[in-house]
Amino acid sequence: MTCLLRRLHRIPLSNLGRRCASTFQYLDVEHSENGYSTLKLNRKPVNSFNLEFMNEILEVIDNVEKMPESRGLIITSAHKVFSAGLDLTELYNPEQDKSRQERLNTFWSTFQELSLRLYQTPLITIAAINGAAPAGGCALSLNCDYRMMADGKFTIGLNETQVGLAAPFWLCQLFISVVGHRNAEKYLTLGTLLKPQDALKVGMIDEVVPAEELMSSAAKEMEKWLKIPELGRVKTKELLRREYVNDFVRLRGDDLKGFTGLVNNPLLQKTLGNYFKALQKKT
Amino acid sequence: MTCLLRRLHRIPLSNLGRRCASTFQYLDVEHSENGYSTLKLNRKPVNSFNLEFMNEILEVIDNVEKMPESRGLIITSAHKVFSAGLDLTELYNPEQDKSRQERLNTFWSTFQELSLRLYQTPLITIAAINGAAPAGGCALSLNCDYRMMADGKFTIGLNETQVGLAAPFWLCQLFISVVGHRNAEKYLTLGTLLKPQDALKVGMIDEVVPAEELMSSAAKEMEKWLKIPELGRVKTKELLRREYVNDFVRLRGDDLKGFTGLVNNPLLQKTLGNYFKALQKKT
Amino acid sequence: MTCLLRRLHRIPLSNLGRRCASTFQYLDVEHSENGYSTLKLNRKPVNSFNLEFMNEILEVIDNVEKMPESRGLIITSAHKVFSAGLDLTELYNPEQDKSRQERLNTFWSTFQELSLRLYQTPLITIAAINGAAPAGGCALSLNCDYRMMADGKFTIGLNETQVGLAAPFWLCQLFISVVGHRNAEKYLTLGTLLKPQDALKVGMIDEVVPAEELMSSAAKEMEKWLKIPELGRVKTKELLRREYVNDFVRLRGDDLKGFTGLVNNPLLQKTLGNYFKALQKKT
Repeated sequence: MTCLLRRLHRIPLSNLGRRCASTFQYLDVEHSENGYSTLKLNRKPVNSFNLEFMNEILEVIDNVEKMPESRGLIITSAHKVFSAGLDLTELYNPEQDKSRQERLNTFWSTFQELSLRLYQTPLITIAAINGAAPAGGCALSLNCDYRMMADGKFTIGLNETQVGLAAPFWLCQLFISVVGHRNAEKYLTLGTLLKPQDALKVGMIDEVVPAEELMSSAAKEMEKWLKIPELGRVKTKELLRREYVNDFVRLRGDDLKGFTGLVNNPLLQKTLGNYFKALQKKT
Repeated sequence: MTCLLRRLHRIPLSNLGRRCASTFQYLDVEHSENGYSTLKLNRKPVNSFNLEFMNEILEVIDNVEKMPESRGLIITSAHKVFSAGLDLTELYNPEQDKSRQERLNTFWSTFQELSLRLYQTPLITIAAINGAAPAGGCALSLNCDYRMMADGKFTIGLNETQVGLAAPFWLCQLFISVVGHRNAEKYLTLGTLLKPQDALKVGMIDEVVPAEELMSSAAKEMEKWLKIPELGRVKTKELLRREYVNDFVRLRGDDLKGFTGLVNNPLLQKTLGNYFKALQKKT
Repeated sequence: MTCLLRRLHRIPLSNLGRRCASTFQYLDVEHSENGYSTLKLNRKPVNSFNLEFMNEILEVIDNVEKMPESRGLIITSAHKVFSAGLDLTELYNPEQDKSRQERLNTFWSTFQELSLRLYQTPLITIAAINGAAPAGGCALSLNCDYRMMADGKFTIGLNETQVGLAAPFWLCQLFISVVGHRNAEKYLTLGTLLKPQDALKVGMIDEVVPAEELMSSAAKEMEKWLKIPELGRVKTKELLRREYVNDFVRLRGDDLKGFTGLVNNPLLQKTLGNYFKALQKKT
């Protein structure tokens, strides 16, 4: 809450502690004069989450939370795919040596941390989804306060089962809170990806806009949220997300064990191997 | 459960213990011969909840529960506003003296108690919403079994954040149970007020009827509910609301502390002060 | 998980341990060559659940879970009623002697067990609802992964309160997870039965198909689910249903006590007696 209080009281903060936007390897960051920042994911070709990419996003959240002049964050992609989710090469053949297993542990802990931090930030968070958002890409948007999606021939959803994986319990719970238990169960089990208009119907996203209006619409929505007095808004967000966060934190260790166990299962490695072969053939 | 058993076995009850309806300062109470009572909120101009008003409503719930000839309660307004919610003057400048702080404590405890009692009563409860129902007015209706609203140019919703407040966790949870987590989050954060037809679409209310038919429609709906064998109906209500009630009771003390802390925050007092000034200008 | 692992690794299993389908008194079981089995409820006239009927269904679940060549189960009726739910004669006049009370205990424990087993089975479960499915009939389908209903002049729902009973807490919770808290509360309290198209609108069922296409549509749906890699699918089902199962198991003893207490209540016996008299008059 320290940074919230600092912002509420408008304590100016030296910029010295912050890394200049241009020094990020995978991200473009812009600060608007209207009181919010924009984060453009830029790890080509599909913004897949490797460890370094996630650490950079975490750093941006930290930085913007500390800026008294920025109270919101719009997350979008710098190119045509919002995000394809986890970088599956991080999961492939981890048993080869000890440092690979350690990286697997750190990789998953960081994905947990990123989700928790984004879900709990006092910043107003809007996902401006300008392209495909399967699996982790969808997860990133689910952690935001509002999801706006460009209309187009791409899809969104949690399709983990299609590649042999299972979404972790906390992502399941998050999805349930957005689309309801029944829909979550059906979509998660079948790994369903939905077109923007269908995603809108079940509440997976909040709004569909023409692609060329996405960023201006996101800015307008942000201005609406910025008008709400901050103390009550942040308190409300905290109250509504508290139970989920408590469960997540309590079961975080078990989830790490479960995930690494699943990844080390030979059946999963075989499924992943086949998946990579199929990808190579395509390219 | 004592009063339920008494009612189930139709043990007659002397009227001596009950206060005559006409002695209430802020309420009109009528007992129908068809097995239910009607409570008309009558604290002009907008039925805002001060301590005494809430204590009177609590007394009516007690009384009707003890009446073997009454198994339901329709709640409506005696005039054109259903209820504007909490009387904000109860929250303004509480730090002035010790008795003000004590009243603030009692005020919030009584609002908690009223919500718990109304939500748990074995009576069939129908809110016949005949006018605007923001904040606490909406909360009152959410504690009922059924919400019927007159069509008209007024709105319903939990707009606490608009005046700088945050709805307490238990009201958030109640709202979630009615409109789902996603809608609850969006509406609570932005403090959204909905027109009757829009409130109907998201399930915030169960039915919209022409204003002139509101009371007759509420009576018809009550008759439908009165036909259900009581033992199973009351048991079902208890089972469905048990978990919520347990959480509420467990965290009641924390909520009281959190609320009085928020009210004593200078930022909130400033927001309230501005709100009162704006109101005065209007009048 | 033993049987899941066995199936995943395709360990062949001797058929010796399994009872031949034709030896069931109340059930017809068929094993398709496409990787799933079909269970046809056949206790005339209305597939009402008595103790022996439920034990047979439990045995079928056990058997199919052990068959490496079968990974799914379609449940339907061999005649025109899907299931009328609990056999109410099991609940009538239990106080007559000690063995009746013991049977009542076993009866309810078995209904709990059947629900838990069906809800947790790693098998893909599809209810092909080809006729009326009130109370326990609806409950059976709610425990499946997918509900497909024939269009026709019959209904589905949890109408326990209509005969003076209350659905147990775990059935309430299951219903909430499917149709949401608000709808569950309204339907459970009033004991509402819905036509197929109305049940579809609120998500109580997933699909309505013409009666003559029910079994072929169910087979097609099953094939869709069978394509999902099993490890991730089963893990996802387990994660999504874990919390419910934990609560159920924890409160199972209390529920048994509560249920037998309710059944032994003279008021309930009177309601049941009247119900049976009304039924006799009809016949």
